[in-house]
Amino acid sequence: MNELLYGVAYYDEYMPYERLDKDIELMKAANINVVRIAESTWSTHEPQNGVFDFSSVDRVLEAMHAAGIKVIIGTPTYAVPTWMVKEHPDVLAVTSDGPGKYGARQIMDITNPTYLFYAERIIRKLLERTHKHPAVIGYQTDNETKHYNTAGPNVQHLFIKYLKERFNLDELNEKFGLNYWSNRINSWEDFPSVIGTINGSLGAEFSKFQRHLVTKFLSWQVSIVNEYKLPGQFVTQNFDFEWRGYSYGIQPNVDHFQASKPFDITGVDIYHPSQDDLTGIEISFGGDVARSTKQSNYLVLETEAQAFTNWTPYPGQLRLQAFSHLASGANMVSYWHWHSIHNSFETYWKGLLSHDFEPNPVYNEAITVGRDFKRLSPKLVNLKKENQAAILVSNEALTSIDWFKFNLNSSKNYNDIVRLMYDELYRMNVSCDIVSPTSDDLGKYSILFVPALYSAPDSLLERLNDFVKNGGHIVYTFKSGFTDEYIKVRTTKQPAIIQEACGVSYNMFVEPKNVSLKNDPFSVGEEHNYIDTWMELLTPTTGSVLAYYDHPQWGKYAAITKNHFGKGIATYIGCIPSKEIMKEVLQAAIKEAGLWQLDQEITFPLITKNGVNADGKSIRYYFNYSGDKASFQYPHQSGQELLTAVQIQHGEKLVLEPWDFIIIEEN
Amino acid sequence: MNELLYGVAYYDEYMPYERLDKDIELMKAANINVVRIAESTWSTHEPQNGVFDFSSVDRVLEAMHAAGIKVIIGTPTYAVPTWMVKEHPDVLAVTSDGPGKYGARQIMDITNPTYLFYAERIIRKLLERTHKHPAVIGYQTDNETKHYNTAGPNVQHLFIKYLKERFNLDELNEKFGLNYWSNRINSWEDFPSVIGTINGSLGAEFSKFQRHLVTKFLSWQVSIVNEYKLPGQFVTQNFDFEWRGYSYGIQPNVDHFQASKPFDITGVDIYHPSQDDLTGIEISFGGDVARSTKQSNYLVLETEAQAFTNWTPYPGQLRLQAFSHLASGANMVSYWHWHSIHNSFETYWKGLLSHDFEPNPVYNEAITVGRDFKRLSPKLVNLKKENQAAILVSNEALTSIDWFKFNLNSSKNYNDIVRLMYDELYRMNVSCDIVSPTSDDLGKYSILFVPALYSAPDSLLERLNDFVKNGGHIVYTFKSGFTDEYIKVRTTKQPAIIQEACGVSYNMFVEPKNVSLKNDPFSVGEEHNYIDTWMELLTPTTGSVLAYYDHPQWGKYAAITKNHFGKGIATYIGCIPSKEIMKEVLQAAIKEAGLWQLDQEITFPLITKNGVNADGKSIRYYFNYSGDKASFQYPHQSGQELLTAVQIQHGEKLVLEPWDFIIIEEN
Amino acid sequence: MNELLYGVAYYDEYMPYERLDKDIELMKAANINVVRIAESTWSTHEPQNGVFDFSSVDRVLEAMHAAGIKVIIGTPTYAVPTWMVKEHPDVLAVTSDGPGKYGARQIMDITNPTYLFYAERIIRKLLERTHKHPAVIGYQTDNETKHYNTAGPNVQHLFIKYLKERFNLDELNEKFGLNYWSNRINSWEDFPSVIGTINGSLGAEFSKFQRHLVTKFLSWQVSIVNEYKLPGQFVTQNFDFEWRGYSYGIQPNVDHFQASKPFDITGVDIYHPSQDDLTGIEISFGGDVARSTKQSNYLVLETEAQAFTNWTPYPGQLRLQAFSHLASGANMVSYWHWHSIHNSFETYWKGLLSHDFEPNPVYNEAITVGRDFKRLSPKLVNLKKENQAAILVSNEALTSIDWFKFNLNSSKNYNDIVRLMYDELYRMNVSCDIVSPTSDDLGKYSILFVPALYSAPDSLLERLNDFVKNGGHIVYTFKSGFTDEYIKVRTTKQPAIIQEACGVSYNMFVEPKNVSLKNDPFSVGEEHNYIDTWMELLTPTTGSVLAYYDHPQWGKYAAITKNHFGKGIATYIGCIPSKEIMKEVLQAAIKEAGLWQLDQEITFPLITKNGVNADGKSIRYYFNYSGDKASFQYPHQSGQELLTAVQIQHGEKLVLEPWDFIIIEEN
Repeated sequence: MNELLYGVAYYDEYMPYERLDKDIELMKAANINVVRIAESTWSTHEPQNGVFDFSSVDRVLEAMHAAGIKVIIGTPTYAVPTWMVKEHPDVLAVTSDGPGKYGARQIMDITNPTYLFYAERIIRKLLERTHKHPAVIGYQTDNETKHYNTAGPNVQHLFIKYLKERFNLDELNEKFGLNYWSNRINSWEDFPSVIGTINGSLGAEFSKFQRHLVTKFLSWQVSIVNEYKLPGQFVTQNFDFEWRGYSYGIQPNVDHFQASKPFDITGVDIYHPSQDDLTGIEISFGGDVARSTKQSNYLVLETEAQAFTNWTPYPGQLRLQAFSHLASGANMVSYWHWHSIHNSFETYWKGLLSHDFEPNPVYNEAITVGRDFKRLSPKLVNLKKENQAAILVSNEALTSIDWFKFNLNSSKNYNDIVRLMYDELYRMNVSCDIVSPTSDDLGKYSILFVPALYSAPDSLLERLNDFVKNGGHIVYTFKSGFTDEYIKVRTTKQPAIIQEACGVSYNMFVEPKNVSLKNDPFSVGEEHNYIDTWMELLTPTTGSVLAYYDHPQWGKYAAITKNHFGKGIATYIGCIPSKEIMKEVLQAAIKEAGLWQLDQEITFPLITKNGVNADGKSIRYYFNYSGDKASFQYPHQSGQELLTAVQIQHGEKLVLEPWDFIIIEEN
Repeated sequence: MNELLYGVAYYDEYMPYERLDKDIELMKAANINVVRIAESTWSTHEPQNGVFDFSSVDRVLEAMHAAGIKVIIGTPTYAVPTWMVKEHPDVLAVTSDGPGKYGARQIMDITNPTYLFYAERIIRKLLERTHKHPAVIGYQTDNETKHYNTAGPNVQHLFIKYLKERFNLDELNEKFGLNYWSNRINSWEDFPSVIGTINGSLGAEFSKFQRHLVTKFLSWQVSIVNEYKLPGQFVTQNFDFEWRGYSYGIQPNVDHFQASKPFDITGVDIYHPSQDDLTGIEISFGGDVARSTKQSNYLVLETEAQAFTNWTPYPGQLRLQAFSHLASGANMVSYWHWHSIHNSFETYWKGLLSHDFEPNPVYNEAITVGRDFKRLSPKLVNLKKENQAAILVSNEALTSIDWFKFNLNSSKNYNDIVRLMYDELYRMNVSCDIVSPTSDDLGKYSILFVPALYSAPDSLLERLNDFVKNGGHIVYTFKSGFTDEYIKVRTTKQPAIIQEACGVSYNMFVEPKNVSLKNDPFSVGEEHNYIDTWMELLTPTTGSVLAYYDHPQWGKYAAITKNHFGKGIATYIGCIPSKEIMKEVLQAAIKEAGLWQLDQEITFPLITKNGVNADGKSIRYYFNYSGDKASFQYPHQSGQELLTAVQIQHGEKLVLEPWDFIIIEEN
Repeated sequence: MNELLYGVAYYDEYMPYERLDKDIELMKAANINVVRIAESTWSTHEPQNGVFDFSSVDRVLEAMHAAGIKVIIGTPTYAVPTWMVKEHPDVLAVTSDGPGKYGARQIMDITNPTYLFYAERIIRKLLERTHKHPAVIGYQTDNETKHYNTAGPNVQHLFIKYLKERFNLDELNEKFGLNYWSNRINSWEDFPSVIGTINGSLGAEFSKFQRHLVTKFLSWQVSIVNEYKLPGQFVTQNFDFEWRGYSYGIQPNVDHFQASKPFDITGVDIYHPSQDDLTGIEISFGGDVARSTKQSNYLVLETEAQAFTNWTPYPGQLRLQAFSHLASGANMVSYWHWHSIHNSFETYWKGLLSHDFEPNPVYNEAITVGRDFKRLSPKLVNLKKENQAAILVSNEALTSIDWFKFNLNSSKNYNDIVRLMYDELYRMNVSCDIVSPTSDDLGKYSILFVPALYSAPDSLLERLNDFVKNGGHIVYTFKSGFTDEYIKVRTTKQPAIIQEACGVSYNMFVEPKNVSLKNDPFSVGEEHNYIDTWMELLTPTTGSVLAYYDHPQWGKYAAITKNHFGKGIATYIGCIPSKEIMKEVLQAAIKEAGLWQLDQEITFPLITKNGVNADGKSIRYYFNYSGDKASFQYPHQSGQELLTAVQIQHGEKLVLEPWDFIIIEEN
């Protein structure tokens, strides 16, 4: 990619009246240079089985090309037409709730051959027609693909085959603990539907299998697209995240690290709170995941324009958001969507334009973004980032903690712990990669953060021990190492294999009520000195104690410990601490790892991101995530502020307006 | 009707022992002059398919007649017998939850021909036997009829026919926006079950169709009853309201204005909070709806006696309630029910008598009501009311807002906005009619209140513009005019067509957090100066601003505006204001409309209602809805207080005891 | 039984590696002398239909016997193997939620003959193989047996036969009030599935029928076991309680008094809050129920070791709990379970050992318990208790109140009222039996406590009247006597038949809002002077008023009354009082009954329990249920403290450490 892309999703098919020329005129005014089309409208493009009508695609391609706007073609397979479901009701996924009902998108069984047959046909028809068109720069397969909890008899059938390839029955019974409650399976023919299982090992393996189905489905789509893809074109996928009304954490239903492999470039959508709740954290987190999947730049295929009534950006925020994506390594920022839709489910998920198609304050701000993207593209595209810190995330840990909640009353899940760490790192401007259990180059990092790695094979834990032994630093939280890859609890003292690096052990854990850390060892103040949800009763072996619990009965046990192991240090947090405590523990570990640098001297709401551009120069972004002015002394090498072309001197005091930012290219 | 009816529902069939003579004796003591029977007991009257036993009807008719008590016969079709469901399980409605289960009432598919066959037969058998009986004054068809969410394949079949009569497929796809998410239907054969739809246009049209089914079903019952009805007899239906544990607002599942047409007189049931929570609002609101359907007097076929444990009336309240019904135009007040039932679902929905059948404080108070009803009937029956104010309500607006909630977290629905307006009008003693989108005599009103008219055809909005142009006053709330009759958002600036009359426009809206009106323009005080849930960012065109939002980012936008248009004035409220603000806005509009009169100088808990009786004299009720004494200066023409026969002078200071009332007939 | 049993559940089948010898070594160190095996592992013992493998049973029996540890064999019928469900899906219970899904335990239709066939076969195979083994001391049938809401067509079929044996149709319709809402059944063939019923009489009768199924199923299992049982061996069942995350109250789905009859000895499981929430109440309540079923000693077949993270005992608590069981009459205390399980549903329901199988603080404390159990067994086994007070509990009252909740908003059920009484009695050290409506020796008690006896036949109420007449004391709460055994409300003034003894009547009841008792008659202070949920408007007839309601409208009615009737006194509480008020009312009644004795002078957290041991000597336990020291003056005859062998003098001041206890054998 050699320029920044600024785009929108465009649906000619949804227009209440002829708009194409007028829309393009408005897009051009905003320097929008790419549109994403066709991924949601199969029923328009194939109105009847085998009857195709790509006229809206054709005309949009022509018109965009004439205007110099590029096009990304989406394969329209994530929302099936009515005729297909009527002819073949079995294309709908059977889930634990029973058979599916037509209506929403993303309701298919992605293993169903009838669905796959029609999906392949529409993809081929669409790509045959469009792939040579000069406007087309790339393809998106499907959209926000997941497995939709498909769990019908055919999926069960595939799952049993999957298990047979990996286990004999005795192994399966032993590893999964199926003797319990008479769940033992003594003949493959007896295998019950996994829908009703109460065995977390089996349930989690099924979830893993379902994630494999997603990887396989996407890989299959890529293989078809690749038959048409011309040199210079790319294929991407729009990955999304755990959804809590916005993009919160690791996606439970897709292994992004595996599923992204066949793609040329990773795409994501990122939605986040706005107005007074805009922090930039989701932009940063989603971007870090996307960039880390292929250790390269990525596309933000969807993000919010006006969206919900609680997301309409304040003046300045749309710009702030757009450049924040770039600062994490994005080469494209694209809004979902161009125009607010006049009917159906997402009527209030507003686009850049409101329902009246008129310019409005948000669109007007987009004009300034587009202008600056265009102007600064040579400086800002393909930003390279080299991080010395990484967070290790795991789909397996996530699923296993869904099966075994932190405690009976807690609604917290794995991603809460991921975010507890990530958010504090973000606030202290520690730039992170995101790595997965299959990452094979952990050694390039100085420090790893490992939240609640509840399920992990021995080999991973041993690699983590080696990482420390060789001089790395790790901060673990509670629950790490507790079970193996089949969620069988390890039979040694905990934290099992990582005891060695952590120098601590326990075999009891309790639920804290009004528990703090003794003598406030991190000086966070009474208000912030608390832990919740879970506490492991730690006893150091070779480690030293950073904090004891303050509790009449459990006060002799450690809460947080540190251990020198080989050339490195492992910190272990045996509870869920307040974010203030987490911050202090992380800060200490970062300092020990020698990573505490100039950027860490400024903190949220001042956020800085940096990288190296194509000219080999350092680019430094400074964002003010606040409704108040903020100032700081510029600590780096002198350079030019790119928006204003003003020279900035080392040590100069800089003032940022509310929700504003600057970009400095070092000399 | 030439006398006030005071009644009870009477179920000889539920009696634990022979009670008829004793019950009638107690009824006579209370001057109860009508009973309502037979609507719930099909299984008793037709114990086996085609075997009929009306002995309990016969004996009750005889005994009541002998005692001079009139009888309303209910057709027993809203609760089906066990044999029918066993023979024909398909009489039960299939809903979005799947097939029905026998047990409760109101579970039938009201389009099922088997059900209709048996229903017609029992109606004819019952009416053949009873219609000539001299005790019978009228009939009630079915009871609280609704569509019970019937949505099985046969209903789907009818719905498609209904759509075909109204749309060709291209129109349907366009108007309903079905291209979205590949929902497009390119052949009628492909039409999916509407149960799973995520398209609000389609879903709301189905709800409208279901309301048509109710209208049709009731009309069909009336046509049968009319074959038997003798001169002087009437046919009515017991309509009910949105249920929030009591009668709250407009009924979502029935169009009362359409469904009431074939009936001679409208009947309703009204249940409401009591004790410290008794305000009279539900009595007034339900009465206004009932009276407005046919612009005539109505029957309260059911209201509470002791009912729930939180509804047992305080001393005085039963009287207060009864006369409040009359003051809104009721000609009948009937309790559900005579005796508390000893088994099953409504054991704690207590009657006038407790389970012991003995006189009790509530029954004893009913004696005084019956005596006064009888005595004052000539003065109070057939009260005529002419209102200059009306609230426009709409089933379509209600359903469309169910599909598109005010915001993601709000539990408020359309009726909350209706009641926000209605309640404040009630509290300032502004007497209202209730009109529907099909009302063709809006011109008779001076002022209209239009809550959240989210879905409306162009023609209605144009009529409302004309209403203002011709000198009328309208107070609109937010969301009015936003979508057309198919819930397609209008493609112009909002509030679309009514922009013209309102002189205001917007194309952005946000969700308020801690937002007030700038400088408290209505002087409601800090505590009451807030808005919530929704805010449209209004910009006046020809209008003037009554209030701006107080917000750092949105402070330049108007919250409430006013516009002179033609000879009238339109006020537009772009948010959900506190009730104190709503009160002030309404009060200003009423004053501008020249409707601020003497009655508005007293306010809740003092409530006044008036009308003209058969002698052409003004009747003025004054109610004290409070546990404290209240006093006021009587502002009208001198007259006689009817309960005490005392003369009241203009300007005299009157004192009302807690929960008490007076009735003045002007000289 | 001639010695105290100290045991664990042991699952050789769940072990992640060979543990048997090591486990036995650890058990012996703790003086564990009994294990409970085999009740959960059918799929291991019958891996395929008709193929049996008892090798784990054999080896455990051998090893335990060699170590001198006794074994209780459980019939493994509460969790069915996969092959059975695959061959015969109809063994799963069909419930109101539809067909069952394989996965959990306790999902079978306990009337299904296929299930019963296989169950009988595995029981016989297991017992044939084990019953002569010298280690076997007894058998447990099934486990925590309930009816699992089985309600499929076959169960419906049996239910109709059950009804036919008891009623003709006219009676049924009349007693159950089926005329209501057209539910009348005029032919048995018309009988609808009870799943959808809204008739509480029918629904409650079905629940009663389901409890009969449990009684029948258990009786059938006992009859099989008895064919094998050798002299000296026993058969028991592990009954459990209403579950609120712990053992709370009367079990709704089993009639413990009926179901326990065929067993030699009653067994129970008792789980309870711990740490700061440990009160001993559940231990006492569950023990009182168990002891009362057969008026004899009982077994605690399961109780918690470490269990949940909020249950891990503080130092001292495991001992306190164990001896508390003995003090209520238990002869066995057995933990569920020995080792924490490494997979599946109960991974966090921890055993005496953690997942690492190492000694830990809880296991170490168990060593002291085992040692003291062994040492003191001759003194403490077979403790006999003779109580003069009893609480009358009723499954029928419980079910009927589930159908007719206290009020529309309350989540309280019958057991809340049982516990409101029980807890206060416990806190004042009043030792109780628990009696059921079928108890035929009420006359042996001086005082009965009767919580919310909502459903009861005339005969029971008459027996209670006689009890008072003959000199007994009763404290009733509200709702008692209201309906008959078919939940038909009685047609007289309430509380119906017991009016005579209580000297009070009412026919109105309301829901209190901010209601207290007038003039705080029990001097509980403003904070505690409140009632909630329900208030009957009582008028004394022959009774005297203990408390009036403080309310502007209902202040003339009594809340609590007392009546001399014959030689006894009946107290009636017409509302839900605060626990402080309940305490005062109970205390007064106990004093009037002459039961206020020395033990009542100490109160919670000091708890005392006593009985007579095999030597005919009084054993007096004193427990300190608190984290603070507690002291008291020993009021009884001098004796020996058994743990320390120290002599204790009458009147001596004794000090108990936190969570500690002493045991005194009177001289």
